[in-house]
Formats: sequence, C-alpha cells, structure tokens
Amino acid sequence: MKPDIIRIAQAIFTVQDLSASKEFYVDLLGMNVLHEERGALYLRGVEDREWTLKLEPCREGEAPRVRQLGYRVRDEATLDALIALADRQKLPHRWEEELDRPRMLRMQDPFGIPLSFYHEVKTYPWLLQEYHQHRGPGLQRVDHCNVRVPDVKATMDWYVNELGFRLSEYTVDEQEQYWAAWIQRRGGVHDFALTNGAGPCLHHWAYWMPDPMSIIKTCDILAGARQPERIERGPGRHGVSNAFFLYIRDPDGHRIELYTSDYITVDPDFVPIRWLRDDPRRQTLWGAKTPRSWFEEASAMEAFGGGVQEAREGALTGIPVHVI
Amino acid sequence: MKPDIIRIAQAIFTVQDLSASKEFYVDLLGMNVLHEERGALYLRGVEDREWTLKLEPCREGEAPRVRQLGYRVRDEATLDALIALADRQKLPHRWEEELDRPRMLRMQDPFGIPLSFYHEVKTYPWLLQEYHQHRGPGLQRVDHCNVRVPDVKATMDWYVNELGFRLSEYTVDEQEQYWAAWIQRRGGVHDFALTNGAGPCLHHWAYWMPDPMSIIKTCDILAGARQPERIERGPGRHGVSNAFFLYIRDPDGHRIELYTSDYITVDPDFVPIRWLRDDPRRQTLWGAKTPRSWFEEASAMEAFGGGVQEAREGALTGIPVHVI
Amino acid sequence: MKPDIIRIAQAIFTVQDLSASKEFYVDLLGMNVLHEERGALYLRGVEDREWTLKLEPCREGEAPRVRQLGYRVRDEATLDALIALADRQKLPHRWEEELDRPRMLRMQDPFGIPLSFYHEVKTYPWLLQEYHQHRGPGLQRVDHCNVRVPDVKATMDWYVNELGFRLSEYTVDEQEQYWAAWIQRRGGVHDFALTNGAGPCLHHWAYWMPDPMSIIKTCDILAGARQPERIERGPGRHGVSNAFFLYIRDPDGHRIELYTSDYITVDPDFVPIRWLRDDPRRQTLWGAKTPRSWFEEASAMEAFGGGVQEAREGALTGIPVHVI
Amino acid sequence: MKPDIIRIAQAIFTVQDLSASKEFYVDLLGMNVLHEERGALYLRGVEDREWTLKLEPCREGEAPRVRQLGYRVRDEATLDALIALADRQKLPHRWEEELDRPRMLRMQDPFGIPLSFYHEVKTYPWLLQEYHQHRGPGLQRVDHCNVRVPDVKATMDWYVNELGFRLSEYTVDEQEQYWAAWIQRRGGVHDFALTNGAGPCLHHWAYWMPDPMSIIKTCDILAGARQPERIERGPGRHGVSNAFFLYIRDPDGHRIELYTSDYITVDPDFVPIRWLRDDPRRQTLWGAKTPRSWFEEASAMEAFGGGVQEAREGALTGIPVHVI
Repeated sequence: MKPDIIRIAQAIFTVQDLSASKEFYVDLLGMNVLHEERGALYLRGVEDREWTLKLEPCREGEAPRVRQLGYRVRDEATLDALIALADRQKLPHRWEEELDRPRMLRMQDPFGIPLSFYHEVKTYPWLLQEYHQHRGPGLQRVDHCNVRVPDVKATMDWYVNELGFRLSEYTVDEQEQYWAAWIQRRGGVHDFALTNGAGPCLHHWAYWMPDPMSIIKTCDILAGARQPERIERGPGRHGVSNAFFLYIRDPDGHRIELYTSDYITVDPDFVPIRWLRDDPRRQTLWGAKTPRSWFEEASAMEAFGGGVQEAREGALTGIPVHVI
Repeated sequence: MKPDIIRIAQAIFTVQDLSASKEFYVDLLGMNVLHEERGALYLRGVEDREWTLKLEPCREGEAPRVRQLGYRVRDEATLDALIALADRQKLPHRWEEELDRPRMLRMQDPFGIPLSFYHEVKTYPWLLQEYHQHRGPGLQRVDHCNVRVPDVKATMDWYVNELGFRLSEYTVDEQEQYWAAWIQRRGGVHDFALTNGAGPCLHHWAYWMPDPMSIIKTCDILAGARQPERIERGPGRHGVSNAFFLYIRDPDGHRIELYTSDYITVDPDFVPIRWLRDDPRRQTLWGAKTPRSWFEEASAMEAFGGGVQEAREGALTGIPVHVI
Repeated sequence: MKPDIIRIAQAIFTVQDLSASKEFYVDLLGMNVLHEERGALYLRGVEDREWTLKLEPCREGEAPRVRQLGYRVRDEATLDALIALADRQKLPHRWEEELDRPRMLRMQDPFGIPLSFYHEVKTYPWLLQEYHQHRGPGLQRVDHCNVRVPDVKATMDWYVNELGFRLSEYTVDEQEQYWAAWIQRRGGVHDFALTNGAGPCLHHWAYWMPDPMSIIKTCDILAGARQPERIERGPGRHGVSNAFFLYIRDPDGHRIELYTSDYITVDPDFVPIRWLRDDPRRQTLWGAKTPRSWFEEASAMEAFGGGVQEAREGALTGIPVHVI
Repeated sequence: MKPDIIRIAQAIFTVQDLSASKEFYVDLLGMNVLHEERGALYLRGVEDREWTLKLEPCREGEAPRVRQLGYRVRDEATLDALIALADRQKLPHRWEEELDRPRMLRMQDPFGIPLSFYHEVKTYPWLLQEYHQHRGPGLQRVDHCNVRVPDVKATMDWYVNELGFRLSEYTVDEQEQYWAAWIQRRGGVHDFALTNGAGPCLHHWAYWMPDPMSIIKTCDILAGARQPERIERGPGRHGVSNAFFLYIRDPDGHRIELYTSDYITVDPDFVPIRWLRDDPRRQTLWGAKTPRSWFEEASAMEAFGGGVQEAREGALTGIPVHVI
C-alpha cells in the first residue's frame, strides 16, 4: 500500500531569541499564538485549525536550524506504510510525541531532510471568520515548503515514486538537467519545492494569504516598524506558479514566503510546466531580478539524532543570471 | 470500483439570442471564445484549458434552459463504473460526442439533474499568464454549480454514497432538516451545492476570480454599460464558504456567481460546518439581506430525451427570513 | 474680505456610553486615540495631524446629538470676516476653547447648523507611515460631512455666496428642484453635502480610506465581532462622486461613511454634474437600492445655547424610489 | 498680480515610431485616444476631460524629446501676468495654438524647461464612469511631472516665488543642500518634482491610478506581452509621498510613473517633510534599492526655438547609496 500524504502541515524552527521571534511573527505578522508553553511558541494562520509553526529556543551552543518539516497523512495505515518504507530503505525513524500530536513519526528521507508525519491531531476552532481578531496582514494557512538540495532530480523522484507526489512545474538548465521542481499532493501548485544548491537546507516556509493587498500590507508594516531589511524579495508575480509573492526573513534568517493566487492541478492530464533557468519571466513574471542572498542563504537542517545535517554542494553549478 | 470524479467542469446553456449572450459573456465579462462554430459559443476563463461554458440557441419554441452539467473524471474505468451504476439504478444514459470531448457520457441522476461525465478532452494553452489578452474582470476558472432541488438530503446522500462527494458545509432549519448542502470532490469548499426549492433547476454556475477587486470591477463594468439590473446580489462575503461573491444574471436569466477566497477541505478529519437557516451571517457574513428573486428564480433543466424536467416543489417550505 | 475656509476638519458627538463608543471606534474601526481626558475621547485617522472626532458623554437626560461641525480656516483674518458676517446676519456666535484649539469660533448658520471655525491648532506627528501601529481597516483622514436640511437650495446658496463653497454635483427632482447638493472648498468632490429632509440633522460624517479593500475589511471586522447590524448600506460605488463607500452606524446611531477614490474638482471650468433623483445609478452606480433607514434616520444637532435644534420638515416630499 | 496656476495638465513627447508608442500607451496601458490627427496621437486617462499627453513623431534626424510641459491656469489674467513675468525676466515666450487649446502661452523658464500655460480648453465627456470602456489598468488622470535639474534649490525657489508653488517634501544631502523637492499647486503632494542631476531633462510624467491593484495589473499586462523590460522600478510604496508607485519606460525611453494613494497638503500650517538623501526608506519605504538607470536616464527637453536644451551637470554630485 502506498502512503497517502494529505499535505504539508507543520514546521519546527529553532531560534536564538524567542522574544525577538515573537515580535516578528506575532506583533508584526499577526500570527495567532495557539500555545505558549514548554518554552516554545506554537503559531498558526487564521484558517489553520492546529499549530503550523513551532518556534523553540536553540539549545546551548547551537545555531538556528529547522528541526523538521511535517506532513499530515490520511490514516494510521499510511504511518504503517511509511515505517515499512523506512525499514526497507533503512531510513532512520522513531515515534515522537508533540503537543496536540500524540503519534508523530519522525523520519529522515534518503537526502537528509528531517520529516515528520502524523494523522491524529487535536484541532481548535479556526479564526477565519473572526476577522475582528485578525492582526497584521492576516496570514491564512500553510501553503508549502521549499528545500535546497544537491540533486533535485533524485530527490523529486523519491517523493514522486515513494510518496506519490505529482510534478506541477520544473526548471531545467541548458543541458535539460532539473534545476528546480514543484511537486504536490493537495491539488495546488505545490506542497514541496526543490531547488538546486548546497543542502539539504530549508529555503523557505510559506503561508497562503487572502489576497495581494494583504501582502502589500506586510511590506508597509515592516517598513513602519523600521525593519525594511526583513523584506528580501518582492512583492511580485512569480512566473512559476503565477502566485503573487513576498519573501521576508525572520530575526534568525529563516525565510518566510507569503503567497497567494496560484492555480489548481487536479486534472489527470495536467502537463507539468517547463521553464528554462534563465528565462527572465521565470522567477518573477515582471522580470525583476532576484537578490543574491535569495540563492545563497538558507536554514540549516537538523540531522536525525541531533547535530546539523551536513550540506553537500549542488550538483549543478551557477545560479540564474537574473540576479542582483 | 467507485467512480473517481475529479471536478465540476462544464455547463451547457440554451439562450434566446446568442449575440446578446455574447455581448454579456464576452464583451462585458471578458470570457474567452475558444470556439465559435456549429452555431454555438464555447467559452472559458483564463485558467481553463478547455471550454467550460457552451451557449447554444434555444430550439424553435423552447425557452432557455440548462442542457447539462458536466464533470471531469479520472479515467475510462470511472466511465465504466458510472455506466454500471446507471444500469443498476436504471438511470437514463447514452454516449454523446461534444466538441473536444469524443466520449462524453450523458446521464440523468435519480433526481432529474442532467449530468455528463468525460475523461478524454482536447486541451488548449491557457491564458493565465497572457495578461495582456485578459478582458473585463478576468474570470479565472470554473468553481462550482448550485442546483435547487426538492429534497436536499436525499440528493446529497446519493452524491456522497454513489459518487464519493464529501460534505463541507450545510444548513438546517429549526427541525434540523437539511435546507442546503455544499459538497466537494476537488478539495475546495464545493463542486456542487444543493438548495431546497422547486426543482431540479440550476440556481447558479460559478467562476473563480483572482481577487475581490476583480469582482468589484465586474460591478463597475455592468454599471458603466447601463446594465446595473444584471447585478442581483452582492458583492459581499458569504458566511457559508467565507468567499467574496457576486451574483449576476445573463440576458436569459441564467445566474452566474463570481467567487473567490474560500478555504481548503482536504484534511481527513474535516468537520462539516453547520449553519442555522435564519442565522443572519449565513448568507452574507455582513448581514445583508438577499433579494427575493435569488430564492425564487432559477433555470429550467432539460430532461433526458428532450423537453424540460418538471420541477417538483421543495420538501421544506419557506425561505430564509433575511430576504428583501 | 471673503472668509477663506480650508476644509471640513472636526466633529463633536455626544454618546450615551463612552466605553461602547470606544469599542466601536477604537477596537473595531481602529481609530487612534489622540487624547482621552476631561471625560472625552479625541480620535483621529492615520493621516490626521490633529483630533478630528471628539466623543463626549451625553449630559444628564439628554439624547445623543452632534454638538458641532468644524472647519479649518486659512488665517485669523478669516475668523474676523466670519464674525463680521455673523454680526451682519445676526447669527449667534461666541469664542470657545477646545483641546488643542485655543481660539475656536462657535457659530450657528442661518439654518440652525452648529458650526465652528478655527485657524490655530496644535498638531501631532501623523501615523500615516507608522503602518505597524495601524489597527483595523485604517481610517485615513476626515473627508466630508453630510447634513439633512429642509431647504437644500437656500442652504447651498448661503455656503456658496458667503463662505465661497463650489458646487460639484447635485440632484434634482422632476421639477428641477434641488434635492441634494455636494459642495467643496478643498478641491475634492465635497467637504459638505446637503440632502433634502427634516433637519438640520447630521446625516453622516465621513473618513477617507486608503483603498476599497480596507472598506471590505471593515465589513469583515464588524461581521467577525457579531455586529453585522452596524453595516447599514454598501459597500458599493456611488454614482454621485464615483467613490467606493460603506455606511455604518455607531452604538448611538451616528452614521459614519468610509469613502475612497473620487476625483478632483480644481479646474476653473468644472461643470457641476447633474443627477435625476430617481436615476437608479445615482445613489449606487451598481443599482443597489438604499435601505429606508438611510433616508429616515439622522443625528439631532445642538442648538446654540444648548438644547436640540428643532427639525423642520424637508421642502420636497418623498424619497428616491430606489429604496428597500 | 500673481499668476494663479491650477495644476500640471499636459505633456508633449516626440517619439520615433508612433505605432510602437500607440501599442504601448493604448493597447497595453489602455489610454484613451481622444484624437488621432495631424500626424499625432492625443491621449488621456479616464478622468481627464481633455487630452493630457500628445505624442508626435520626431522630426527628421531628431532624437525623442519632451517638447513641453503644460499647466492649466485659472484665468486669462494669469496669462497676462505670466507674459509680464516673462518680459520682466527676459524669458522667451510666444503664443501657440494647439488642438483644443486656442491660446497657449509657450514659455521657457530661467532654467531651460519648456513650459506652456493655457486657460481656455475644449473639454470632452470623461470616461470615469464608463467602466465598460476602460482598457488595461485604467490610468485615471495626470498627477505630476518630475524634472532633473542642475540646481534644485534655485529652480524650486523660482517656482515658489514667481508661480506660487508650495513645498510639500524635500531631500537634503549631508550638507543640508537640496537634493530633491516636491512642490504643488493643487493641494496634493506635488504637481512638479525636482531632482538633482544633469538637466533640464524630464525624469518622468505621472498618472494617478484608482488603486494599488491597478498598478499590479500593469505589471502583469507588460509581462504577459513579453515586455517585462518596460518595468524599470517598483511596484512599491514611496517614502516620499507615501504613494504606491510603478515606473515604466515607453518605447523611446520616456519614463511614466503610475501613482496612487498619497495625502493632502491644503492646511496652511503644513510643514514640509524633510528626508536625508541616504535614508533607505526615502525612495521606497520598503527599503528596495533603485536601479541605476532610474538616476542616470531621462528625456531630453526641447529648447525654445527648436533644438535640444543643453544639459548642465547637477550641482550636487553622487546619487543615493541605495542603488543597484
């Protein structure tokens, strides 16, 4: 039986100063604090019925990192199938317990990405229609994650073949080698994106926004707070995905994308969209160049058993030419 | 094997004056004419890769009606399963050929609703990123249909049990009887909605819009063209679905909804949302009352073999109190 | 010398429960509290450099009312000219002191409207670019006031002839009698609007909004707070002024308009725009009908020396036909 | 008597290929063609009641340039006062006739900027509420012009002292020397802006947009047409003016700004806002850097009597540090 993954659902970041993170995520971005306990902050968007981003302090002497990226799965049978897969492929795994997730399967994929999977979860009433309680720009729900990996093709193939992901868009270089891929389970453009580069590292974690104006409002809020340097790229319209987007950096450098207005991919004959790496309309449909930091910086990931996952260089060299 | 329905995908309307319809759908709403042949107009939104609304002239002496509502299905096996279902339940059905759909299964559900199902379809490059070719407010893609039926509960049960739809929201009267239901296959709020009343009649056919401002622009365009009477209800925010919406009427009275910004329903433990029929926030979260015509008028549907499906009265009497 | 009026600038309302008003104006509408002292609340929008709405408790046994509508004037010479006008026309007047306005001329116009005029004012840094401090929908600045008066033409003539207002739009009935008029000093569509009806009563007090989406957000916030009944009319696009608008009612029934996106009227050959009272596009370009309360309810005004200004019936009878 | 200038009102550009310009301004930007005659194109926005941008072919052997920037004035007496000023200061001037402007005073200011002034003008019904005729993003009305000049302070002083402009914002370098100034007649942020640099050259010509989403739509349209290179800077929020903006370049390199949502400056005690040249929030509140071309490229201006006005170097050297 194949695992039935529903969607990308949660991330856990470590941060150096939880109060600085709280100012960023809660006071400025307006995320809702679902729990503040055990020394950690559990956040969500207004449509989320569960926490979707956990922030916890770095342990003594450790730098900020991503502890895991988590997927919601359809049933307990999927968890069994994942364990069977892990056993078969000798992937490190164990059961963990997290707040509101009594049975969470922590696993490391063959490329060193720290995953978790869970079916059972305690949910809470959402805030979607509690508009009087929305704060800041109103982040709505988890949309996707993007991981920088040394071998996009191999990584993509594993997720497609073993976990049933489907390809929606991809980027190739002049030799038709995969430079990036967008893959999905949920029927949207992506739950998971892969970009060529040193890794595995988290490139960004993304929330869906209700409309483009809420993304513009985010820029205004960060500027008002005299933190324009938190705005790294955008706002703009992606060529890939057609989404209206903004990339911002949290106080530890973790990159958050605010994202809205892509398209659906449910049709069985959907043909993945191919882009050339150096097409000026690929990154931003409007032709805007991308800051070099966007290609060069990403969050370290935790290895199974602790420590940081060592990053290997990307298989393909160079970055797109439309860079500043 | 259960049929695997992907999504609501097409409608066919008959109209009294194709040139008047063209002015409405093409000149004002800006829909794209994919084909204009065989005396009919085949329209689509900018994300649609196939025609999604066909308009054809009424036959001599006939009034405007809905000839069919069509679903895209996953595979040919689903079509086989649908034929088996039709045979088992003695539902009228036959193969038909439509432009770009060589094998379309025309079927009538047990409640008299004219359905079609197809897997194979000829697709065309979309216009999503051809923004310079967008016209008017920019209708994006088919979102859902809404049918007025005499027995909401029975109809809903059949779609859930036989076709695998899932319930996302529902409305009950004071006796906890189902007054309306929103059911889905695609992971959004609905592909298909059912409302109590004389039927089966098409209540409305809906397109997804890129953002709320494009809906406001639709109102401005209709007003500019001195056709404010085409605006029947809204714009507003629905309580049910949380979508930003507008209802307009075409020259034959067929009702079109423009709709955006609802939420996702993919989680396995999603709990359908229950509304009381007379909750003032149900129809429009902002409390706006609904014009009586919205409850009283709907499009007739074609019976299998021709002629109009006779409408039976709704099982529940009365309409919501928030009406003008 | 003619008085040189700059713009409409402030209003003072009395309210029955200051804490309920604070919840509405501050917690929900997000207005900024510039001062909270002397038992009153002094509010402003994010562009305002001074308080623009003062709320004070009703005195014992008194119902809520409007104590004054205030204009900013160019210089002290204008105040002298206004006193000369008042003396000449025997209009009641006196000097008053208000918070931040050391020399405020309180005057009653010939129609019983309680006016104030001031030149000197203490200003404060605005919040326009302090986006991180904006709350709720972000009311921006005072835009205009609208007063219901028994004789629109006579009232308009006095403001045009004595105070130098200019006419931008007007409405006539079938006998070409003035039913409403929009007059301005500031180069926009209006500082002051007059509508036929029992009066003088304040019909509404209006704030400029940054864009239409902030008006839609206001509806969502009021709905979220389970106060949809505070939304009286709209959102919509006015025929008159072309503005995107919303009318809401505060806990005492005072009507606030949120308004954006009209046009400029600075050209010397600007020709006032004429509307017929029963043109369906006049009130709302989209043809939406207006609730009867919008025509029938308005805030009482304070007479000079205390007490409520007695309302005389409107010279023209009837209300527009596009009413619900 | 002082001249009474109403507002900036028109520009005349020469272009190398009128059909390419028409594609840009009409097919993509959706400007309305008020006249197409005498070998020239007369364009306007939807609120404009007269043409506001004239495009005419370059004469044989000439490069594209700006032939004049025109102001609407209050009355014929203002034209007399301007002639008296020109005589007094020995400024070249003459009467010219233009389409719809029978008496246009062509004049050159002391800094070589080609000006025109007119009072009488033939107006046409606007298109503001003819929304069904709007095309593209819907440019609304002339907002301002920006000229690069060698001596900002001297130029500003002349416009303030001789033509009655008022200062709304200004930028100084570390020595408190004026690097840029925004001056106005109309009660908005500016009719005319001055930036230090080689000149006189037109930096940009600006139209007011109805809302930020229409500016975003402009980017999408240019990208859809495979002309992303026409987008030079933005979209973003200016620090100066607080406006939401976009800069685009026409086929001859003339720079157009689309601009919306600034503030009003009518108060007599309005205090001009001071910015430091290297404040990262000055150019774009969000901190975005400005492309070098934005500082280095501008349109040549026609000298009185023909030929190109020779550009002198800017008095202040260097450009802001926030450049890419």
